[in-house]
Amino acid sequence: MNYTTLPKNELETLKAKLTKQYNKYKDLGLSLDLSRGKPGKKQLDMLEGMLGVISDSADCMSEAGIDCRNYGLLEGIPEAQRIFSALYNVPTENIIVAGNSSLNLMYDAVARCMLYGVYGGNGPWVKQGTVKFLCPAPGYDRHFAICESLGIEMITIDMLPTGPDMDAVEKYVSADPMIKGIWCCPKYSNPEGITYSDDTVRRLAALKPASPDFRIFWDNAYIVHDLYPDRHDELLDIYEEAKKHNNEDLIFFFASTSKISFPGSGVAMFAASENNLSQIKPIMNIQTIGFDKINQIRHVKYFKNVDNIRKHMMKLADLIRPKFEMTLQILNEELGDTGIADWTNPNGGYFISLNVLDGCAKRAYDLAKDAGVKLTPAGATFPYGNDPRNRNIRIAPTYPSDEELVAAMEVFVCCVKLAAIEKLLG
Amino acid sequence: MNYTTLPKNELETLKAKLTKQYNKYKDLGLSLDLSRGKPGKKQLDMLEGMLGVISDSADCMSEAGIDCRNYGLLEGIPEAQRIFSALYNVPTENIIVAGNSSLNLMYDAVARCMLYGVYGGNGPWVKQGTVKFLCPAPGYDRHFAICESLGIEMITIDMLPTGPDMDAVEKYVSADPMIKGIWCCPKYSNPEGITYSDDTVRRLAALKPASPDFRIFWDNAYIVHDLYPDRHDELLDIYEEAKKHNNEDLIFFFASTSKISFPGSGVAMFAASENNLSQIKPIMNIQTIGFDKINQIRHVKYFKNVDNIRKHMMKLADLIRPKFEMTLQILNEELGDTGIADWTNPNGGYFISLNVLDGCAKRAYDLAKDAGVKLTPAGATFPYGNDPRNRNIRIAPTYPSDEELVAAMEVFVCCVKLAAIEKLLG
Repeated sequence: MNYTTLPKNELETLKAKLTKQYNKYKDLGLSLDLSRGKPGKKQLDMLEGMLGVISDSADCMSEAGIDCRNYGLLEGIPEAQRIFSALYNVPTENIIVAGNSSLNLMYDAVARCMLYGVYGGNGPWVKQGTVKFLCPAPGYDRHFAICESLGIEMITIDMLPTGPDMDAVEKYVSADPMIKGIWCCPKYSNPEGITYSDDTVRRLAALKPASPDFRIFWDNAYIVHDLYPDRHDELLDIYEEAKKHNNEDLIFFFASTSKISFPGSGVAMFAASENNLSQIKPIMNIQTIGFDKINQIRHVKYFKNVDNIRKHMMKLADLIRPKFEMTLQILNEELGDTGIADWTNPNGGYFISLNVLDGCAKRAYDLAKDAGVKLTPAGATFPYGNDPRNRNIRIAPTYPSDEELVAAMEVFVCCVKLAAIEKLLG
Repeated sequence: MNYTTLPKNELETLKAKLTKQYNKYKDLGLSLDLSRGKPGKKQLDMLEGMLGVISDSADCMSEAGIDCRNYGLLEGIPEAQRIFSALYNVPTENIIVAGNSSLNLMYDAVARCMLYGVYGGNGPWVKQGTVKFLCPAPGYDRHFAICESLGIEMITIDMLPTGPDMDAVEKYVSADPMIKGIWCCPKYSNPEGITYSDDTVRRLAALKPASPDFRIFWDNAYIVHDLYPDRHDELLDIYEEAKKHNNEDLIFFFASTSKISFPGSGVAMFAASENNLSQIKPIMNIQTIGFDKINQIRHVKYFKNVDNIRKHMMKLADLIRPKFEMTLQILNEELGDTGIADWTNPNGGYFISLNVLDGCAKRAYDLAKDAGVKLTPAGATFPYGNDPRNRNIRIAPTYPSDEELVAAMEVFVCCVKLAAIEKLLG
């Protein structure tokens, strides 16, 4: 039943029925959360063996005889560098294995640019006027929050099925020297689950920025986060592509094991070209003596190699795939032929991105909230929390139990329908 | 034998003898390190039980039922806040239990002031011209490195036996609104082991700064780091004192377990007034979702309470006290009556601070280095690495084995003598 072509009286009838249903949900006093990309308890339980893998001082010795219990080694232990190197296709010597949070590394990277500038650049960004970043959207709200917090002006770039609209990116980057960065979540993007096409990666790697300060903030958060054993995306290696244009200095790489091992107790990494590191490492060495090497070796001794990480990720996928499938099934059954919403069916990552009728996202969000179902705030996936079409909602299905997820989705689709009918009735 | 009153010919004879001895040391091809305040292996071994204390998911549950394996809780787990509160006399709700490094928290705090300013202040420090910090010296080289890295002008304040020269501090702070901070290591200071007197703490707590931006960076690194069971210093509670003057907002507190548990894998804390936290927490929440709570609960479950931390610290003291005593004995025997050096005999902390004859520190350092004994670079304990009298050398006796320590000290005293004689001979 396509809502958009229904006569007014039928919409009224439907609205009455849905309102009754909605009020029933409301009376249940629910408290359900589809808002954050947070692993569920069962996912964490899959890592039980990691907790005890370091149990005495012998376990803390690296293969090169480094005592991970003591100070030192800013770039992290070599065996952790090697695993990240194999996973992300960046040379070992370009990698800094850091603390528990890639978000922290990204924030620090931008703050460092503000205070010191970049290798080969025009000095501290704070001294250059209003800095601007390109923000492909829908995107990750915390990327945008970093910019907003630091007073960086955000320019929204449309996300296409191939990644950021590269025509727009190229135009902006080559024309405006105040554009200093672009946020990229290149594989299974947050929230749409889009993987950048080869052409997009090639064009990013070949950018000719107007400013020597320009950097690509490459947040490769979901590189091994396939949902299906038989369906997965491939991401072209941007480092190799960049080399062809002597553009290695353009890229800051970020990743973490937050959604591989423990969120909040994983290991994050930063990688960059030799030139970039020659500027960044001495500053990081003022900031800290070193990161938590015991946690690094805990990860190394538990996973041992990339193959085991891939196997582990497929076990996690077995846990979260049903949640994605349940969510998609409810969306299909309830909204499939209504004409009031479309959504993504990603091969990996942590989210389903849903577009409702223009102007209806905030209303659907509010209705759900009032009925006890928390979603990522409407607009959050856009710079300044401002979705120009007010239509995008990010669904994070991983954290709730299966029962909670079904309950939350039933309420949510009811809210989407009500918001749409309100609009259609004008 | 007082070198300073010896006739020239006797000095020449002594020099020849010492040079012969020095060359013998040099031929040994030593590689010894007295440079960093780094725990020795035996100290780390005392924490063997901590490594295995978290071995399954049940161990990761906080008393309030928080799953420490998952995201969230920027301020850290309540039981860790409580232990820090009891240890540092700061209210629980004013504490953020963070990652592995208080240096990182201090750097971030200063960088945050540069980019955002402080609560009640005049906005971002980067927009206010050249910021200045008061730097009591001799002091901690890494404090000074933060200032230098961020372009903050450092003003050296003399360290007296009671702490920073408060007459100078009061004069500067009340007169110059560009003075935005002072570095304090108030108990068992790095490197002199001085504990601020009650009067010093009271005067700091009562400061009337010319700028509302002014903050005291209170790095309480060595609060439970007594060396002797029967000799210890008491530090007055600056927070209580500050309250009497409505000056709570003046203080940023830092501490960590780096020299209680594992350096690099300990737990750090930041504390500040409610007002300060109301400005800082939202910014930290942009920087990170949260710190490593598994490591926090590991510390809580191992130590349980402050009494156990104190007992543990006395066991560590039993290990490092002999190293201090050996060092002091060699200094006494070799330099005691020479008139060319004096040194501290601290009740706690990690260092012995030695003053040689004016103008001789760099030479003694170089001689030791050439003979394979690494010391903290002469001058490092002063802003810009510039000791105006070129006389201070920091000795860190904890890391080497007892045998290495004795060997290194024998070389070092020989170098101090040679440098002095070179000067006395003119």
